[in-house]
Amino acid sequence: MADSDTTNLTGADALVSTLADNGVDACFANPGTSEMHLVTALDRETRIKSVLCLFEGVATGAADGYARIKGEPAMTLLHLGAGYLNGGANIHNAKRAKTPMINVIGDHAVDHRKYDAPLNSDIMGMAGPNSVWIKSADSVKVTGKLAAEAWSASFGPEPGPVSLILPADSAWTEGGEKGGDAKRPPLRQTPASVIDAAVEAIGKAKSPVILINGTALGEEGLQAAARLKKAGVRIITDTFYARMRRGAGLFSPDRMQYFAEGAMEDLEGSDLMLTAGTHLPAAFFAYPGKPSLLVPEGCETLDLGGADTDSAASLKALADAMGANEAADPTPLKIPEMRTGDLDARAVGASVARHMPENAIVSDDGVSNSMPVFLSNIGAEPHDWMGLTGGAIGQGLPLALGAAVAAPDRKVIALTGDGAGMYTNQALWSMVREGVDVTTIVFVNHTYRILNIELARTGAGNPGPAAKDMLEIGGPDIDWVSLAESLGMPATAVTTGEDFDAAFEEAMKNTGPRLIAAIVPG
Amino acid sequence: MADSDTTNLTGADALVSTLADNGVDACFANPGTSEMHLVTALDRETRIKSVLCLFEGVATGAADGYARIKGEPAMTLLHLGAGYLNGGANIHNAKRAKTPMINVIGDHAVDHRKYDAPLNSDIMGMAGPNSVWIKSADSVKVTGKLAAEAWSASFGPEPGPVSLILPADSAWTEGGEKGGDAKRPPLRQTPASVIDAAVEAIGKAKSPVILINGTALGEEGLQAAARLKKAGVRIITDTFYARMRRGAGLFSPDRMQYFAEGAMEDLEGSDLMLTAGTHLPAAFFAYPGKPSLLVPEGCETLDLGGADTDSAASLKALADAMGANEAADPTPLKIPEMRTGDLDARAVGASVARHMPENAIVSDDGVSNSMPVFLSNIGAEPHDWMGLTGGAIGQGLPLALGAAVAAPDRKVIALTGDGAGMYTNQALWSMVREGVDVTTIVFVNHTYRILNIELARTGAGNPGPAAKDMLEIGGPDIDWVSLAESLGMPATAVTTGEDFDAAFEEAMKNTGPRLIAAIVPG
Repeated sequence: MADSDTTNLTGADALVSTLADNGVDACFANPGTSEMHLVTALDRETRIKSVLCLFEGVATGAADGYARIKGEPAMTLLHLGAGYLNGGANIHNAKRAKTPMINVIGDHAVDHRKYDAPLNSDIMGMAGPNSVWIKSADSVKVTGKLAAEAWSASFGPEPGPVSLILPADSAWTEGGEKGGDAKRPPLRQTPASVIDAAVEAIGKAKSPVILINGTALGEEGLQAAARLKKAGVRIITDTFYARMRRGAGLFSPDRMQYFAEGAMEDLEGSDLMLTAGTHLPAAFFAYPGKPSLLVPEGCETLDLGGADTDSAASLKALADAMGANEAADPTPLKIPEMRTGDLDARAVGASVARHMPENAIVSDDGVSNSMPVFLSNIGAEPHDWMGLTGGAIGQGLPLALGAAVAAPDRKVIALTGDGAGMYTNQALWSMVREGVDVTTIVFVNHTYRILNIELARTGAGNPGPAAKDMLEIGGPDIDWVSLAESLGMPATAVTTGEDFDAAFEEAMKNTGPRLIAAIVPG
Repeated sequence: MADSDTTNLTGADALVSTLADNGVDACFANPGTSEMHLVTALDRETRIKSVLCLFEGVATGAADGYARIKGEPAMTLLHLGAGYLNGGANIHNAKRAKTPMINVIGDHAVDHRKYDAPLNSDIMGMAGPNSVWIKSADSVKVTGKLAAEAWSASFGPEPGPVSLILPADSAWTEGGEKGGDAKRPPLRQTPASVIDAAVEAIGKAKSPVILINGTALGEEGLQAAARLKKAGVRIITDTFYARMRRGAGLFSPDRMQYFAEGAMEDLEGSDLMLTAGTHLPAAFFAYPGKPSLLVPEGCETLDLGGADTDSAASLKALADAMGANEAADPTPLKIPEMRTGDLDARAVGASVARHMPENAIVSDDGVSNSMPVFLSNIGAEPHDWMGLTGGAIGQGLPLALGAAVAAPDRKVIALTGDGAGMYTNQALWSMVREGVDVTTIVFVNHTYRILNIELARTGAGNPGPAAKDMLEIGGPDIDWVSLAESLGMPATAVTTGEDFDAAFEEAMKNTGPRLIAAIVPG
C-alpha cells in the first residue's frame, strides 16, 4: 500500500494509508469485531506498526506518550463507544497535554445503528467533549479525506486528540480514496503589539514573573527563558506539563507549587504575571475558604498566548525586544550521593540521578512520591520529563510504553504510585510483548497517600474506619513482583537505598522492560 | 445519621443519608480529592457499606451486579469526568441491562469550574448519553432532593444508571436537607387491547414465537411462559440479559442465537414474533450481505412492551386471555458425568453443573467459552445466570463482586475469558478485601478467540502477521495464578477435566474468593 495504487481500496485501507502517507507509523490498538477490516488493512499497510493493548486506557496513554516524544500523532483503534470510554481518562490527560492523537473509533455499519444492537451508543455525544475535532465517516468515499482532515486537526490551532468514527460498512466497502497530503497548521505567534506591551509592563514591574508551558519547555524556549531570567523576570512552569527538557547544561525554571497555599506564598510580592503557552494558574482543586485563582491580589496579568501559541517563539521575541542578550547560568551537573538505609523517595531520586543515562525519558505518575525524584534530577544528565497533565492517575505506565515505541534508542523510566499503577497495570504486558526499554519504578506504600493529605486539607474531618478503608490499598497488600512476573516482566522489590541503587544501576546498564517495587513509607 | 437529625448536615451528608433512607446500603467507590466530604459522610452514614475499588470500571460493574441481585440500586463514587470515563464501559453494560444504579460523580466546586483546572471536564456532556437521568447539585439545598429524585429515576420508566454530579462546595457546605422518601415508579403494564390483539394474532399464526427479557425471566414470568409454550407458542429469550432464573424444576426457554445466520435458520418458518420486555432482535454486529434485523421475511411482529414494561405480567395476562392453564414440563434435574482428559469448556460446564449448590449466581463474561457451560447447566440446581448485556467485555469479575456483596449467603461463580478478565483484573483485589464467596473461572487460551471467529465472518480476509498479533494475547502468556496471588487471592491452574472437577468441588465446599485458571484450547 506504500505505492500510489488506489484501485479496490476499502475504506479501511484508504483511512490507514492516508494516515501513513502523512507520517503516522504507530497504532495502539484494542480492536473488536467492528474493527476487523481495519486490522487487516493494518496488515497491508506495513508503514504502520501495530501495538496490541489489553485495555484501551493503555492504548490511548501510549499514543499520548508516543506523540509527546515524536511530536506527531499516533493512531489508536478503539471498539465503539465502550472502547472509547475505556480509553477516555487518558484521552482527557492527552487533551490537557495538548497532544496530537488520532483516535479511530469503529462503529456499527450505518444501517445497523437504528436497530440498537447491544454495543450501540452515542459515540459522538460521549467523545465530543474531549475531542478537538470529531467526525464520522458515514460513506466509504470520505474515509481518506476525513483521515487527512483528522491528522491536520490534531495539530490545532490547539493541538489535541481527534476522534474519527468509522462505521463498519465504510471500512469494508471498496471504493476508498486516499486523502492526500494534509497540511499541518502552525502554532500561532504572539503579535508584536503584545510583545511591546509586555516589554513596557515588565519595565514598570518590580517583581515580574512569567508562567510558561508548551514549546517554551524545549531547549530553545528554555534558552530564551534564561535570557529573560537574567534580565530580572522570574520564570515558573506550570505544575504539570506534557514534556520538559531539563538537567545539567539547561536553564532550570521554577515550578508552580501543587498546593494552593504554597503557590500563593511562593508568588507573594509578584506584581506582574505573564503567561506563555498556558493560562492563568488555578488551584488543582478548590478548598473551603481558599483561593482558586493563584494570582496574588493586585498582580497585573498579561497573556502572551495560550496553548495554541508557539511559546518558545514568544519568549525569544520578548527577550529580543528587551535586549536581553545575556542568559542566566545553566544548571551544573550535580549527581547526588547514594542514600542508604530505609528506602524513601529521596533515595530513589538520588539513584535515578546517579545512573540515568543522557537523553533518558521520565514518565511521572508517582503522585506524592514524585517531587523528591524531580528535585534530585535537576542536575542529572539532560533528559525529558513528562508529567500527569490531566490529573487522571493511571497515565504513567502507558505513557512510558508509547514513549519507548517512539524512541527505541532512549532509556525510559516510568515512575508510578501503586494506586496509580493499578489503573492500567495491563501496560506491563504490552511493554514485555514489545520488548521496550522501560524501567518501571512502583512506589509501594499500600495507600492513596495523596488522599490522606487531601482529606485534612479539604476539612472533611477526621476519618473513621470506613473512610480510612477508602484511602488505604493494603489489606490485601499488592505483591508487585508477582504481578509483574505474571505479565512476563522481570521484577524485584527493594527496601533500602543501597538495594535500590544496585537494582536501578543494573536496570540502566541493561536493556528491556523490568520493574522495581520500591517499598516506601506510607 | 440513621436518626432524623438534620441540623448541620453537609450536602454530602444529605445526599448519602437520603439514599440510605430509601434503602441504598452499598457504595462501590474510587474516590479522589473532590469526594473527600462524601467519604467522611459515608463514615457517619453507617447504613451504607463502602467497598473500595482500585479502578472505576470495577465499581460500576459491581454496582450493576449488586442491583441485578438485590433489585434496587447501589451507589458509586466516581472522581470527576475522568473517573466517570473509567467506569463508563460497565455503565454502558448496566444501561443495556436496565439496571438501576446511582453514579455519584464528584466535581469541582461550582466557582472553581471556570478556571479550567486540570481535572475539569464536561461531565454532563460525557455522561449524558449513558444516563437515564442526569443532574448537577449546584447548591447545597438541593443535594437531598436530587438524591431522592435520582433514586426514583433509576427505576424508570425504563430502569438504568443515573448520574448525580456533586460539586465539592455543595458537598462540604452545611445546610443540606434530606430529600425524604422517594417514590419507586412501577413498570408499565401491557394494555388489555394489546393482549387481545396478541391472542387474535396467535390464533391465526402457524408458528408463533415470543421473544422475552426483563421480569419474564424470573420465576413467575417463566411459569407464565411455560403455559404459553404448552399452548403452542415458542419461547425464546434474548441472547444476553441481566439475569435469568434457570435450572432443574424451571421451564427452560430457548435462547436467541448469537450469530445472525444461526438465528435466522433457527427462526425459519416463524410467522409471528411477539416481543415482551425487549425489542425486535438485531444482529450483534452487521456483516457484509447479511441481515441486521433477525426477523424472517413475512413474519408478523407485535410489541407487548419494551424494557419499561413488566413482561412477567404481560405473559401472565396473555396466558390468562388464551385460557392456557396447563404448563409445559419443567426441566428435570440432570447432572452430567465428569469429563476427563484435556480440559475444555464442556468439561468445565459438566463440573460446574455437578458441584454448583442450589441458588448459586453465575456471572458470565466467558465469551466464546460460555455456551458449553450454559448448556451443561440447564438441568443443574436452580440458579441465576447474569449475562454480558452491552457487549463491553470486562464486566464479569466486577459483576460477581457486586452480586456477592448483595447476597453474602449465596455462592457466586464468575466465568471470564482471559482477554475479558484483563480489562478489570483489579476486581480480584476487592473480592479478597471483602472476603466475598466468589469462585472465578478464567478460560485461559491466550487469544481473543471470538475475534478469530469474527475475522472470518466479516470477510476481512486472511490475517497476516500483524493482524494475527492483534488477536493473540500470548507472547507473553499471562500467568493467572501469579496474577491472582499478587492480589491476595488463592489460585490454581488446571489442564484436565478431572483436575478441574476436583478444584471446583473444593471451591464449592469452602467459602471465600479463589480463582481457577482453566487452561483450554485456543
